[in-house]
Amino acid sequence: MRFFSDNAAAGCPEALAAIETANRIDTAYDGDAWSGRLNRAFSDLFETEVEALWVATGTAANSLALAALCPPHGGVVCNSDAHIQNDECGAPEFYTHGAKLMPLPGEGAKLNPDSVAAFLGTVRDAVHWVQPAALSITNATEYGLVYTPEETAALGALCKARNLGFHIDGARFANAVVHLGCTPADLTWRAGADALSFGFTKNGGFFAECLIFFNTALAAATRYRRKRAGHLLSKGRYLGAQLLAMLENDVWLRNARAANAAAARIAAAAGSDRLVLPVQANEVFVRVTPDEAAALRAKGFDFYDWGPGEARLVTSWDSDPAHVDALAAAIRAL
Amino acid sequence: MRFFSDNAAAGCPEALAAIETANRIDTAYDGDAWSGRLNRAFSDLFETEVEALWVATGTAANSLALAALCPPHGGVVCNSDAHIQNDECGAPEFYTHGAKLMPLPGEGAKLNPDSVAAFLGTVRDAVHWVQPAALSITNATEYGLVYTPEETAALGALCKARNLGFHIDGARFANAVVHLGCTPADLTWRAGADALSFGFTKNGGFFAECLIFFNTALAAATRYRRKRAGHLLSKGRYLGAQLLAMLENDVWLRNARAANAAAARIAAAAGSDRLVLPVQANEVFVRVTPDEAAALRAKGFDFYDWGPGEARLVTSWDSDPAHVDALAAAIRAL
Amino acid sequence: MRFFSDNAAAGCPEALAAIETANRIDTAYDGDAWSGRLNRAFSDLFETEVEALWVATGTAANSLALAALCPPHGGVVCNSDAHIQNDECGAPEFYTHGAKLMPLPGEGAKLNPDSVAAFLGTVRDAVHWVQPAALSITNATEYGLVYTPEETAALGALCKARNLGFHIDGARFANAVVHLGCTPADLTWRAGADALSFGFTKNGGFFAECLIFFNTALAAATRYRRKRAGHLLSKGRYLGAQLLAMLENDVWLRNARAANAAAARIAAAAGSDRLVLPVQANEVFVRVTPDEAAALRAKGFDFYDWGPGEARLVTSWDSDPAHVDALAAAIRAL
Amino acid sequence: MRFFSDNAAAGCPEALAAIETANRIDTAYDGDAWSGRLNRAFSDLFETEVEALWVATGTAANSLALAALCPPHGGVVCNSDAHIQNDECGAPEFYTHGAKLMPLPGEGAKLNPDSVAAFLGTVRDAVHWVQPAALSITNATEYGLVYTPEETAALGALCKARNLGFHIDGARFANAVVHLGCTPADLTWRAGADALSFGFTKNGGFFAECLIFFNTALAAATRYRRKRAGHLLSKGRYLGAQLLAMLENDVWLRNARAANAAAARIAAAAGSDRLVLPVQANEVFVRVTPDEAAALRAKGFDFYDWGPGEARLVTSWDSDPAHVDALAAAIRAL
Repeated sequence: MRFFSDNAAAGCPEALAAIETANRIDTAYDGDAWSGRLNRAFSDLFETEVEALWVATGTAANSLALAALCPPHGGVVCNSDAHIQNDECGAPEFYTHGAKLMPLPGEGAKLNPDSVAAFLGTVRDAVHWVQPAALSITNATEYGLVYTPEETAALGALCKARNLGFHIDGARFANAVVHLGCTPADLTWRAGADALSFGFTKNGGFFAECLIFFNTALAAATRYRRKRAGHLLSKGRYLGAQLLAMLENDVWLRNARAANAAAARIAAAAGSDRLVLPVQANEVFVRVTPDEAAALRAKGFDFYDWGPGEARLVTSWDSDPAHVDALAAAIRAL
Repeated sequence: MRFFSDNAAAGCPEALAAIETANRIDTAYDGDAWSGRLNRAFSDLFETEVEALWVATGTAANSLALAALCPPHGGVVCNSDAHIQNDECGAPEFYTHGAKLMPLPGEGAKLNPDSVAAFLGTVRDAVHWVQPAALSITNATEYGLVYTPEETAALGALCKARNLGFHIDGARFANAVVHLGCTPADLTWRAGADALSFGFTKNGGFFAECLIFFNTALAAATRYRRKRAGHLLSKGRYLGAQLLAMLENDVWLRNARAANAAAARIAAAAGSDRLVLPVQANEVFVRVTPDEAAALRAKGFDFYDWGPGEARLVTSWDSDPAHVDALAAAIRAL
Repeated sequence: MRFFSDNAAAGCPEALAAIETANRIDTAYDGDAWSGRLNRAFSDLFETEVEALWVATGTAANSLALAALCPPHGGVVCNSDAHIQNDECGAPEFYTHGAKLMPLPGEGAKLNPDSVAAFLGTVRDAVHWVQPAALSITNATEYGLVYTPEETAALGALCKARNLGFHIDGARFANAVVHLGCTPADLTWRAGADALSFGFTKNGGFFAECLIFFNTALAAATRYRRKRAGHLLSKGRYLGAQLLAMLENDVWLRNARAANAAAARIAAAAGSDRLVLPVQANEVFVRVTPDEAAALRAKGFDFYDWGPGEARLVTSWDSDPAHVDALAAAIRAL
Repeated sequence: MRFFSDNAAAGCPEALAAIETANRIDTAYDGDAWSGRLNRAFSDLFETEVEALWVATGTAANSLALAALCPPHGGVVCNSDAHIQNDECGAPEFYTHGAKLMPLPGEGAKLNPDSVAAFLGTVRDAVHWVQPAALSITNATEYGLVYTPEETAALGALCKARNLGFHIDGARFANAVVHLGCTPADLTWRAGADALSFGFTKNGGFFAECLIFFNTALAAATRYRRKRAGHLLSKGRYLGAQLLAMLENDVWLRNARAANAAAARIAAAAGSDRLVLPVQANEVFVRVTPDEAAALRAKGFDFYDWGPGEARLVTSWDSDPAHVDALAAAIRAL
């Protein structure tokens, strides 16, 4: 019973059907009809004109976004627990040609405008010091917390005032939207975002992420960077088709709702004493002793330890209800 | 009726079935069972221990191979018509951090040891001049010609003598093997190759290439580079499963045979006067006047012009026999 | 008797005096009074507002200029014999993060608008192909030829029409100006140049080059790139002082006149039959048999062979007249 | 009266004389006699065979060293206050092609083996995480503290055990050696160092740093990297000559002794209550109120504020004794 990561989930039936439908001789790269419809479909979803580029991984989406927002001699402000800082083996540095990540602490992997502003105030404006050029947040965060539209907009306003690009790593954007019940627009460009890594793979895709530029002027060079990074798949129609299929009928929201609901069930079982942080998306961090962790594993639950005395339990769109119930029961029984 | 590129082909049934079979919750990245079997499967195929890394595109495979073989301050000798030189938007330069491609002329996009040796003789051994560090050939070439094991080994011997890494871009490696009837080993490591970009996507995969290191010491750092390039797909099992399915029962050879046979039928129809080059794989370059090209297009055939007075016709594993026959007839009728 | 290269020349008395004058405790980096006067001094010289950044080497000046004009995924058109292509160990690729040099043939290391335009016409406007972003010429060229203001302006107009940045490698800019008798303005920004690597080291400096931006918007980021490349010398005042001293009283022109005159004496001795190319600056390329070359060396003349049957003889501001006369006599006597 | 930085000092007479002596036509780059003697001279000094490469700046020396010790996908452990982390505008990231600096806290800008080992223990050995490849310390540190041979050796042993390259930023190496009275060997290779940025510019050079490789196998590729970075000055003999002149008769030690002694006089005047840290080299950090700082400035002393309530006072080889006495008196009088 896997609660390791939503990365380990299956692809959803709609995405598979889309791959099968797209499985015929067609134009290569992104010249096919599915890929050609992405800009329209995502512009409709976001209620503004966007440029939408498929890529196969979130790391590529994040890194291409940062390369568009930050020069090689610039810096990217992020949380110390950000995926771009910790878990991508230096991909942002590779794509930006050596820009410097500038990690700031913040509980639950969140940033707030005050600490960002305070940090910016320490950077002297001279050539010896890397100048911050962009801010990147993750929503939902690596700890399963969600930025509200208001929180996002406060950071967006700071970016605008300080001339920073604003990127959102939305590997679990769907989970955030579902939690908030807001529009995708409210959580992105209306809050000042320039670019969003819109994750679909964790949420039921097979290999499908979409890099969304609200600042559409950034897309043209990024299309070259995507090719240059080897990320222009020759049969891109399989990517385009998956994305469209998951937008259609709000499959992406349905999937995220399922994952969030499963996490909520586990959170309820854990209770507030065990919870390290509020559960707002599909990740549950619980306090467990080594013996308790061992007991859960003995019952067949797979998950990561996450710092001393903590376990991370991640649900996904396809978490088996029986497994979720079993886990909830096992946690209650600890 | 598409004869644009084998890039535009569908995925084959075995690959699709593999994706479907792999569609369940499993370990992420390359921790799954399918990915874990790749080294063994490709080592068996090549009759030597290899390291096999899946990637989603040939550009990524080529660039990762070159990054493993050439330092940022080195050079990569290749043919002037090589894909890495012309068609990858500078991806080799990106992955190698600015190594210099050193293109040499050669008919049909082939290199030969004499011209390579002559070039190497012009490079002075001092810090002002970029020193060649690797040689890259494409087999079958961008013009559909095939290097024999002997030709390959002659280049391999030169590489060894001059301390150059030796890479083979095998986007159409299957087509070359089928044409020659040799073993994969004869065409690679027995001929001195360090790394092979083994193409599956053009040959019936959905998105599946395999970077093979015969020089296995190069693999460890490449695994980091792959992640850092955003090419470690989180659901890598779909890649691993496709590759295994296409190795099984020699599906990869069956597919390539079909493509080569279709090209041979077109070549036979064209006749030696029209053929720009011998047809050894699945690409046919024919001499056509603009009017003739227009006439073919009017009959529904899609293809690229390739230099003045030349058309490129590419077949694939799934070329419709009726379309092939129609094209052959149309060419005969010109 | 060294005729290897003007690189091997001494520093001139004015430059040495400037170093000595600047040898006192003062503000570090480029915060000193000498460095602070550069923009004004070069703006006066060029009759327009420029940004002037000292650097210690021509390779750094060229590479910083190209990094300002070309993105990592772009290309730089240049002559096949250009210093940036052949003699800088890939420095342009390093500074531009992997941009692709696009060398074109052209006699005497010159480019002409027709061949450049023809090349540009072959580059398809799509993401698979590196798009040219800049043009770089060398004036005087690596073969001692000089572009006139008209020739330069024709290339400048092409750059403007095609949206290419325009860089001039002026390692021997002084020699070109002296030959032409034109203004520095006519040979640069009035002809459309965005940036000039203005060489002083070969022309009597100790270690002093000046990167001039006519497109002044490019300077701000370049100041960061200069620091990031380790080229912001902490005691930059020695650089600033040298440059100012060589501008003062037209020392730079006096020095270049001496070098050109020495080359002219050798050229006159050689006669048109021996000369490979017209002698317009301070480099003389002569046809010599191996025996003749050996005879010259036996008399104590040091120089480089340059292709089969050719020798390169380079004069400098401090070429000893007696050595020059001796060389002229020796050539006449061949 | 400048106490800003030893960067602002003059060049010493011996270095100037060397520049003048080297001011004649000679072989370019590092082909001259002075540059040719560097390996021997520094090997003698360090009592082991070393490779010694001149460069014009400490940033270049540090960055070239790190590029030799750390791959693009690796990490460099350093102190949070290290020059490479804070004051070089991302030069290490540029030269290493995006390696990640891994800053650790430590008082007085020092690292200790325990905290380094603890950090290393947190890095999981898998491709998602940048793997530390090198350790860099500064001796004397940015806060004027000195690592002893024993402290250095403890870090060197850790590097060896963990397979990390070991670099020492010795911008003020001379000041450390003078303070300790040890041999240069004890403080470097005998303590496990692979490379040293040996600073001469702050210590009386005009523009002269020397990158020393104790791990001599690293030098060959670095010579290419130096050229590729535009740091192979064409008249390198001025660099070689300065370095030799400052080694001769222990000028480098004499200069550092003068700077350290001046700092000691100021420290004695300040007294232990005002001193933020012990004064071991040529930097004095004193606690001053804003009023006190203003009072000092009103008397003509120039210096940097360094954190709230702290001033940094830096002496140099040429600090005017009268200025030093005046500063000491002024501090006593506060």
